[in-house]
Amino acid sequence: MAPNQSQTTQVTAQNVSISRTKDDFLYHFGLSSTAVDMPKMFGDVKFVCAGGSASRSKHYAEEFSREIGVAKPTNLSRSDRFVIYKTGPVLWINHGMGAPSLSIMLIETLKLLHHAKAEDVCFVRLGTSGGVGVAPGSVVISTVAVNGELQEEYVQWIAGKRVTRPTRLCPLLSSSLSALAVHMHLPAVSGKTLCADDFYEGQMRLDGFFCEYEEQQKLSFLTTIHSLGVRNIEMESTAFAAITGRAGVRAAIVCVALLNRMVDDQVTISKELYLDYETRPFKLVSTFIRKQLKI
Amino acid sequence: MAPNQSQTTQVTAQNVSISRTKDDFLYHFGLSSTAVDMPKMFGDVKFVCAGGSASRSKHYAEEFSREIGVAKPTNLSRSDRFVIYKTGPVLWINHGMGAPSLSIMLIETLKLLHHAKAEDVCFVRLGTSGGVGVAPGSVVISTVAVNGELQEEYVQWIAGKRVTRPTRLCPLLSSSLSALAVHMHLPAVSGKTLCADDFYEGQMRLDGFFCEYEEQQKLSFLTTIHSLGVRNIEMESTAFAAITGRAGVRAAIVCVALLNRMVDDQVTISKELYLDYETRPFKLVSTFIRKQLKI
Repeated sequence: MAPNQSQTTQVTAQNVSISRTKDDFLYHFGLSSTAVDMPKMFGDVKFVCAGGSASRSKHYAEEFSREIGVAKPTNLSRSDRFVIYKTGPVLWINHGMGAPSLSIMLIETLKLLHHAKAEDVCFVRLGTSGGVGVAPGSVVISTVAVNGELQEEYVQWIAGKRVTRPTRLCPLLSSSLSALAVHMHLPAVSGKTLCADDFYEGQMRLDGFFCEYEEQQKLSFLTTIHSLGVRNIEMESTAFAAITGRAGVRAAIVCVALLNRMVDDQVTISKELYLDYETRPFKLVSTFIRKQLKI
Repeated sequence: MAPNQSQTTQVTAQNVSISRTKDDFLYHFGLSSTAVDMPKMFGDVKFVCAGGSASRSKHYAEEFSREIGVAKPTNLSRSDRFVIYKTGPVLWINHGMGAPSLSIMLIETLKLLHHAKAEDVCFVRLGTSGGVGVAPGSVVISTVAVNGELQEEYVQWIAGKRVTRPTRLCPLLSSSLSALAVHMHLPAVSGKTLCADDFYEGQMRLDGFFCEYEEQQKLSFLTTIHSLGVRNIEMESTAFAAITGRAGVRAAIVCVALLNRMVDDQVTISKELYLDYETRPFKLVSTFIRKQLKI
C-alpha cells in the first residue's frame, strides 16, 4: 500500500479549463486557488478522511493530532458548508448526508488537491450505518457499493441524460484494513454496501412519516440484499466509490453498524455504547494511516 | 392563505405504526417523542422555514425574533446534524445540501409536528440557486420542481423498485408571495426550478474536477431548459415539493439567483452584494409570515 517511490501519481483534474483558469473559487470551502497558497498548504496531503458529521470530523482530527504529536488543528474552511482540519499529511473533512452533499465535498477536495499538486492520495470514508445481518458494533469494510437498483453504479443526470459510473474501491486497501482489524481484535466484516437516497423508505424502515409496506416486505428485502452480499446500508457509498475511482485515487469505506436492521429500525443503544461503536472506524483507520506513514 | 377557522388540518403521519409506537426517536434531531413534550413545545407551529446552511438558519431566526419582539432563540436540536430554532409559531431548520439530506430533515420535522398535533402548517424553503436567464439578485418563486430527467417527479428507490412522486407546490402560496414581492419592489420572477443531484456536472458547470462537455453544450442545455420555463437550478426542490405535497401541507420555494448561469459558473460577487442578495428570500418570506400571522 505504500506509494511506489519510483511511480507517484499526482491528483490531476480531468478538465483542461481548470488548469487554464486564473482563479478557481472552491465555493463550498470558501477557498480561492490564488488567495491561498495551495501547494504550500496542501501539497503534502496523503490521506483524506471523510465522515458525515462536522463535529465528529473535528473530534477525530483532534484525536489524531494528539496521537501523532502535532498542534491541535483549526478549521481551514471559510464557509459553513464543510469543515476542513489538517493534521500533518491527513485531512479530515465532513461531507454531510447523502450522495449529492458528498459529491460537492469530493469534487472540491479533488480540485484543491489538483491545485496543490498533491501525490499518491488515499481517500477513506469513516461512517455510521445500519447493519444487515451483522451485530451492532461491527465494522463493515466495503468491498463494493450498490445503488437503490442494486447495481454497482453511481447515476448522474447530465444535460437531461442518464450517465452511469462504475463504483470502484481499492481491493488492496480494503484487504489491508480487514487484516489490520483482525490484528486489532476489532469486530469487522467485509461486504457490499447499499447506498440509499433516503433514511426511511429507501432503507425500508417502518418508522417514517410515510410507510406503504409491511414488516414482512421489509424483512424480505433485507434477506434478499443479504443473500447478494450486502452487509450494511448508508447514503454516500456509490458517489464516494465512483468519484474517487474516476479520479484515479485509491479509496476505502469503513462504517460501523449502529444496529442490525433485521432486528430494529431505531438506534436505541446507550450514549456510552454509541460513542464506543462510533469510534471503531477511527481506531482502525488512524492506526492504518500511522503505519502507512510511519508516524 | 389564512387558515380557514372552521376547517383545520392536523399534520398526520401516513403510517399507523407511528401512533402506536411508545417512543419515537427523531435520530437526526436527537429528540425523543416521550422525553420532550412535543405538543407543548411545537403544537403552535404554523410555518417551517428551511434553508441549506445552519448559520443562515440561526441568523434568520435571530432576525425574525427581533422583528416580532420575542427572546433570541436557542438551538433545540440535540444532534449536530441539523439546527432547530423556534420564534413564536415559526420554526427555522437547516436541511444541508441535496435531496437526501433535505428528505431526512423533512420526514423528521413532519414526524415532530405529528407528535405535536400541529395544525395548518406551511413549509417554505428559502435558498440560494443559479439563475437561468435571470439577473443575479433575482428572487425566483418556484411554480413547480423538475428533476434531472426534466420530469415533475421526485424519484425514490424502495425495495429495489423505482417509485415516482409528483412534485406539488401550493399555487396560491406562490402567487401570494409573487404579489408581495411586487409590492415590496423586490426583483422577483416565477418559474420552474431544476433540481440537480450535484453541483458541477449535473448543472453543466465547466469548472468541475471532471468535464466531458464543451461550453456550447452547456449553453444549449441552459437554453433548452429556459425554453421549458426553468428559471433557476438548485439541489433540493423535487424532494421538498413531493414530500410536502404527499404529506398534505402547503409549501413554497423562494430562492435567490446568485448568478446567471448563462453568463458564468462561479459566484464572483462581493461579500456585501452576496449578503444583500442572500437576504432577499428572507425579507420576502418574513414579511409574508408576519402578515399572515398578524404579528
